Amino acid sequence: MRIARFALQGAVGYGVIEGEPEADPGSARIDLIKAHPFGEIERSGRSVEFDEVRLLAPVLPSKVCAFGRTYAEHAKELGNEVAQEPLLFLKPSTAVCGPGDTIRLPELSDDVQHEAELAVVIGSLCRHVPVERALEVVLGFTCANDVTARDLQRRDGQWGRAKGFDTFAPLGPWIETAIDPSDLEVSCVVNGGRVQHGRTSQMVFSIAELIAYTSSAMTLLPGDVILTGTPAGVSTLRDGDIVEVAIEGLGRLVNPVAKEER
Amino acid sequence: MRIARFALQGAVGYGVIEGEPEADPGSARIDLIKAHPFGEIERSGRSVEFDEVRLLAPVLPSKVCAFGRTYAEHAKELGNEVAQEPLLFLKPSTAVCGPGDTIRLPELSDDVQHEAELAVVIGSLCRHVPVERALEVVLGFTCANDVTARDLQRRDGQWGRAKGFDTFAPLGPWIETAIDPSDLEVSCVVNGGRVQHGRTSQMVFSIAELIAYTSSAMTLLPGDVILTGTPAGVSTLRDGDIVEVAIEGLGRLVNPVAKEER
Repeated sequence: MRIARFALQGAVGYGVIEGEPEADPGSARIDLIKAHPFGEIERSGRSVEFDEVRLLAPVLPSKVCAFGRTYAEHAKELGNEVAQEPLLFLKPSTAVCGPGDTIRLPELSDDVQHEAELAVVIGSLCRHVPVERALEVVLGFTCANDVTARDLQRRDGQWGRAKGFDTFAPLGPWIETAIDPSDLEVSCVVNGGRVQHGRTSQMVFSIAELIAYTSSAMTLLPGDVILTGTPAGVSTLRDGDIVEVAIEGLGRLVNPVAKEER
Repeated sequence: MRIARFALQGAVGYGVIEGEPEADPGSARIDLIKAHPFGEIERSGRSVEFDEVRLLAPVLPSKVCAFGRTYAEHAKELGNEVAQEPLLFLKPSTAVCGPGDTIRLPELSDDVQHEAELAVVIGSLCRHVPVERALEVVLGFTCANDVTARDLQRRDGQWGRAKGFDTFAPLGPWIETAIDPSDLEVSCVVNGGRVQHGRTSQMVFSIAELIAYTSSAMTLLPGDVILTGTPAGVSTLRDGDIVEVAIEGLGRLVNPVAKEER
């Protein structure tokens, strides 16, 4: 099931996508659901044309947990060791934006980079989830871009600022609830040319291990998001670029890039 | 004005404290306010006895921004340099707890330490606030304990886990809206003995500078909290301890400490 969050005529709603919005957006529809998709999903009986809506970030997370250096080739390209233990950091919820939203390059950085990542959307409140049950707390998966001011990341030591700017956590286009995340192709395409490429099977930790690790420290709430790290090929984004995160079975998250206007 | 958030008979509300709840709790009262304290504060005309309520964390922040190594003596005691630039990190909102709530020592750590800190409560949505106007976006100030698993902090590199456990961000007891934060005494008392002691005037950055720095990266929302760093004297908390953060003019934030029960 593909769950979208969208705006239509000033209202915000959740719905289930019917049809193939990427192959044939003109015939795809969204069946509206009552309230939210956490817990039992109840369709309202109303639907709207996919073309009519503006997709939003598919969730508004209370927190975005993220992991670094989970792909060996990416750790190497930045001169780092691959993580021996999961390397957890946080991005603020104010960094979240949606499909089509503009990633703003802050004046403070000269080197803002894309990081294409599989994002886990948590479905149930949980703490101390064992690895073998970790996938039970997942609502589904979506694409994410863990946008990073690489120069500030190196300078600051802690990554709260370099990865925390407004618009530095695009999510979308929707949540896929029925997919095995263990071996999906993850790509990043900038202005039509593929720059990042890997498979989730190359991660040094499983998705379940990352969820269990996070929940060993903190309560996860419905809608919280876990970013699972990025494969090799990160590069600098420039004013006017179009950056796309594509994950097999999850669709494409496309965002324009522009200098911050003040 | 002192603004409290409290629970009474299953309901949660905000109110303005009248009287001296620390000196004479029996005669202090709370005047209830309509809705929330962000924006114009309107009293409802009803009041409750201070003794009757259970104080809660005075805000539920969407994010907790925090700064490290802002006091030279504390940086030195951990073998670090004082920060040349503000050192920003994030704590998850799930770490927040209130006055009297138990700080839980996780099994994963053998060295959980207190860090008494002045906390800024943001009153207005803002971004790119200049230093000279930074205090305009403040609702008030409260006490915080930036509880830290020191062993995990050293091991992990990034501090998302070590400072992010549930209950690792006690806030309270209330928000003081009318105080100059530039030279307040900050103490931490464990089991009646004073362990940390300093003055906010010893900070290497001003409160206004920390707010401006944070807002140069991310939008601050009403209720967001900025922790401003801790003076020297951090020490290990043990099962059964009572830890108290006391800040001149802001009251005392008292929390028992216990091993996590699973």
